[in-house]
Amino acid sequence: MAQNMEIICVGNELLIGKTLNTNAQWLSKRATAIGIAVKRVIVVADEVEEIACAVREALQRKPQFVITTGGLGPTFDDKTLEGIAKALNCKLEVNAKALRMVKEKYEAYARERRTEKVELTQPRIKMATIPEKTEPVSNPVGTAPAVRADLNWTILIALPGVPSEMEAIFEETIAPLLKQASGDSAFHEKSIYANNIMESTLAPLIDKVMHDNLGVYIKSHPRGEENEPHMEIHFSSTTKDAETAEEKLQKAIVQLSSLIEKSSGKVVSGKKTDT
Amino acid sequence: MAQNMEIICVGNELLIGKTLNTNAQWLSKRATAIGIAVKRVIVVADEVEEIACAVREALQRKPQFVITTGGLGPTFDDKTLEGIAKALNCKLEVNAKALRMVKEKYEAYARERRTEKVELTQPRIKMATIPEKTEPVSNPVGTAPAVRADLNWTILIALPGVPSEMEAIFEETIAPLLKQASGDSAFHEKSIYANNIMESTLAPLIDKVMHDNLGVYIKSHPRGEENEPHMEIHFSSTTKDAETAEEKLQKAIVQLSSLIEKSSGKVVSGKKTDT
Repeated sequence: MAQNMEIICVGNELLIGKTLNTNAQWLSKRATAIGIAVKRVIVVADEVEEIACAVREALQRKPQFVITTGGLGPTFDDKTLEGIAKALNCKLEVNAKALRMVKEKYEAYARERRTEKVELTQPRIKMATIPEKTEPVSNPVGTAPAVRADLNWTILIALPGVPSEMEAIFEETIAPLLKQASGDSAFHEKSIYANNIMESTLAPLIDKVMHDNLGVYIKSHPRGEENEPHMEIHFSSTTKDAETAEEKLQKAIVQLSSLIEKSSGKVVSGKKTDT
Repeated sequence: MAQNMEIICVGNELLIGKTLNTNAQWLSKRATAIGIAVKRVIVVADEVEEIACAVREALQRKPQFVITTGGLGPTFDDKTLEGIAKALNCKLEVNAKALRMVKEKYEAYARERRTEKVELTQPRIKMATIPEKTEPVSNPVGTAPAVRADLNWTILIALPGVPSEMEAIFEETIAPLLKQASGDSAFHEKSIYANNIMESTLAPLIDKVMHDNLGVYIKSHPRGEENEPHMEIHFSSTTKDAETAEEKLQKAIVQLSSLIEKSSGKVVSGKKTDT
């Protein structure tokens, strides 16, 4: 069975529609490419009880990985670690290793800007205050360390919400972990585009091709206007053998293309629009 | 207490990172503007059990509104209504009113394209097959009707995933409903931008200003690189009285700006980067 993951995004800015959740897309795409199936994305507010509740619920479903993003910074509303501590039923404590990481960041900052020493105030110590029994993870581009907890069924990792920091920590520390978990699995995908065929006409054709090509998942995405049907048809397969995957996808594409042309649809090479 | 809402987005394309979840942002922004607080966004796969589970969990939290997007179309993987029926413990049935809606759409389609009559095949009838005790809601720009269920605590509405369809149904049918529920509440927001101040320096200043300005929520968003701090600081308030809200936000902005300048930060007029 494929290893799987849940993503919890913390931040009021997501729930008021101020910020587009590009973090969830980025993480989903990277995890999927490595062969890890993302089963759920949850967005919650900057509230301890909301975060704790989402983490508890995710852990109960026993995914191999839970990744949170956001809420690790120095301000009053950075509450992710407090929420995680509550979900894990443990305390927050100043972690010596994390404090060293934070201190080094501010020392480097002062050195580079030739300013006076940056004092370790309460908001700065807060970034080194993490749940008991968790480990800080180095943040190569920002100040707040990420946090990792190895639990019974699940590895839980809390990442910052700033995209450059989240992405850097993911590539440095998490991607290798996911690769190890997924073996050599990888996600393979291809799209074709068709004009002049309604999704409701396409539906039984997709059924047939999926039935004839086990392991290939096919999904249609309407991209045109109501009376000018334009479809993207997406083929995907997660497998350890890239060559077999490509062959399988190609076989399914050829079969579906032929069925579309027989239904007076037209398979076109490029896409017209996309999201 | 503010009326609140949860959003459930259904679609594998979101979980593999193929599609950016602009629907969740659009709905969150519109609901927030009307004065409805979005408490949670959940993204699940095109699987009946996953959808049913997410709907059940959302209903247990008793929000005033649950909106789902995606999975109303004619293909095998459009499973949202099956998931909702399972969560509500009821059956799916061909709804006469929904069937009339679907039929009229295909008749109009055939008329406009001067093609022969479009047959009501199984995939087309599927779009009119909705849970018992729910009502179809007219889709002004697409074929699949939306679906509404008035439950004990919650109004549950299933919208299509195609953005133009989702948005049109929202504006026509849901926005008026939300406005009625929120009274005359509305969301007011303003941002200022500051250079040369670290988030950890800003943190206690925000604490003070929020303490002095009840009802104003302030959140900092780091936008610059590690060693060139650039902050967006976002002020918001949900209230029935626009004039008071503007005054309140302005008062908080003046106070925080002054504190930032005293900490040798610089408040700048425009933004440098944004998400």
